[in-house]
Amino acid sequence: MDIKLNKDERIDDLGLKGLKIIQNSKWFCFGIDSVLLSDFSKNIKKDSRVIDLGTGTGIISILLCGKTELKNIVGVDIQENVCEMANRSILLNELQNRAEIVCDNITNMRNRYDTCSFDVVVTNPPYKKNNTGIKNGEKQKEISRHEIYADLDDFLKTAFYLLKDKGEFYMVHRPERLVDVMNCMRKNKIEPKTIRFVFSNVNKAPVLFLIKGIKNAKSFLEIMPNLYIYDNDGLYTEEIKKIYGNV
Amino acid sequence: MDIKLNKDERIDDLGLKGLKIIQNSKWFCFGIDSVLLSDFSKNIKKDSRVIDLGTGTGIISILLCGKTELKNIVGVDIQENVCEMANRSILLNELQNRAEIVCDNITNMRNRYDTCSFDVVVTNPPYKKNNTGIKNGEKQKEISRHEIYADLDDFLKTAFYLLKDKGEFYMVHRPERLVDVMNCMRKNKIEPKTIRFVFSNVNKAPVLFLIKGIKNAKSFLEIMPNLYIYDNDGLYTEEIKKIYGNV
Repeated sequence: MDIKLNKDERIDDLGLKGLKIIQNSKWFCFGIDSVLLSDFSKNIKKDSRVIDLGTGTGIISILLCGKTELKNIVGVDIQENVCEMANRSILLNELQNRAEIVCDNITNMRNRYDTCSFDVVVTNPPYKKNNTGIKNGEKQKEISRHEIYADLDDFLKTAFYLLKDKGEFYMVHRPERLVDVMNCMRKNKIEPKTIRFVFSNVNKAPVLFLIKGIKNAKSFLEIMPNLYIYDNDGLYTEEIKKIYGNV
Repeated sequence: MDIKLNKDERIDDLGLKGLKIIQNSKWFCFGIDSVLLSDFSKNIKKDSRVIDLGTGTGIISILLCGKTELKNIVGVDIQENVCEMANRSILLNELQNRAEIVCDNITNMRNRYDTCSFDVVVTNPPYKKNNTGIKNGEKQKEISRHEIYADLDDFLKTAFYLLKDKGEFYMVHRPERLVDVMNCMRKNKIEPKTIRFVFSNVNKAPVLFLIKGIKNAKSFLEIMPNLYIYDNDGLYTEEIKKIYGNV
């Protein structure tokens, strides 16, 4: 399909079933967090109805179309120009029958969908509180990184509203927000069930964590073995090579 | 000092400044968790007033007398016979000027101490919920392992009551209770500030975690680099050797 590229845009090959993505080098480009989250949630059941809250470039929605047999996925983002670009990526991959981009604030989902209408929520939300950290100055990046339009509690409230009973919630976040995440998940009745910490290497503190919650589940947390990005020689670990080789 | 030993009791050398401990082989004997918690809390400031909730054999109180310049430490336990034995360990080490064993339920501390009267709380609490897991049948072990007389919320409520503003709370617990711990700490205004996961080895899930909270502190969690017990050859890591060599 012939897709128009705007200024500063490029097409990246995702190395998975020929999937590609359009990115704007001036905006927020996807990182390893989205790749790891897609891998962490790759056991989504066949024919699931999935929603990706804060989809940005659409990376997670596109990867999950390639990695799983989900029925359809809705990628929601508040930024109009980013949504327009993500939509072109959907068309570029001819995924319009399974993936849809919706431009809206995630706090507005109850005006679009019934409650309990999704099997799975995935989200790579803004990591930083609105009033903390250095803001980049680029509006698109700020919205992707800071809780400007929606905070953690909004994401969890929305997930609870959208998910079916025992529906699955997958998120990637930063270690310094772990207490916030666990409190906010339990408060919103999405019980943390599985967590996996991601490390640069064996001797460092974790840089990210992946977490799976289940709506209305009982409490019992499984901590998975760690995920290491680099080995002692500074090279990608076998696991990361496998994830990226199969992104 | 000449100390009487009862049936099934033995004296173990702690390998630190000649400190020893009396243990009863039929009751709960201290494990690596107490050793790691003592090491994790070894930066307790000089002249601190410390309380050890659920002291059992008195292991943490005795180790902290050796590792730190704390002024005094109170070890509280509900089991009379265990307290009597811990008390003999205090006398055996001639620590009676710095350490004291109090036989009481930790939920009863407000009848013994003023609020805000301690700088530090340390605790290796029962890990399992009262109605979960296999109970051992031995009453002493059950009370040490299960939340029979006091649950996590009781420990945190008591810690909040006893600690000064910005006082320090150190605990060791099991990974499957991480969400409970973080929720309960924040609820009781003892904000989790530092956490360290303990692993058998690099490729396994964690077996324990060490957590430090500060009363009335702001939220921001530091996750420390992991603590590994064994290396790839199944031998103690250098860090564990250092901790044990200096138990």
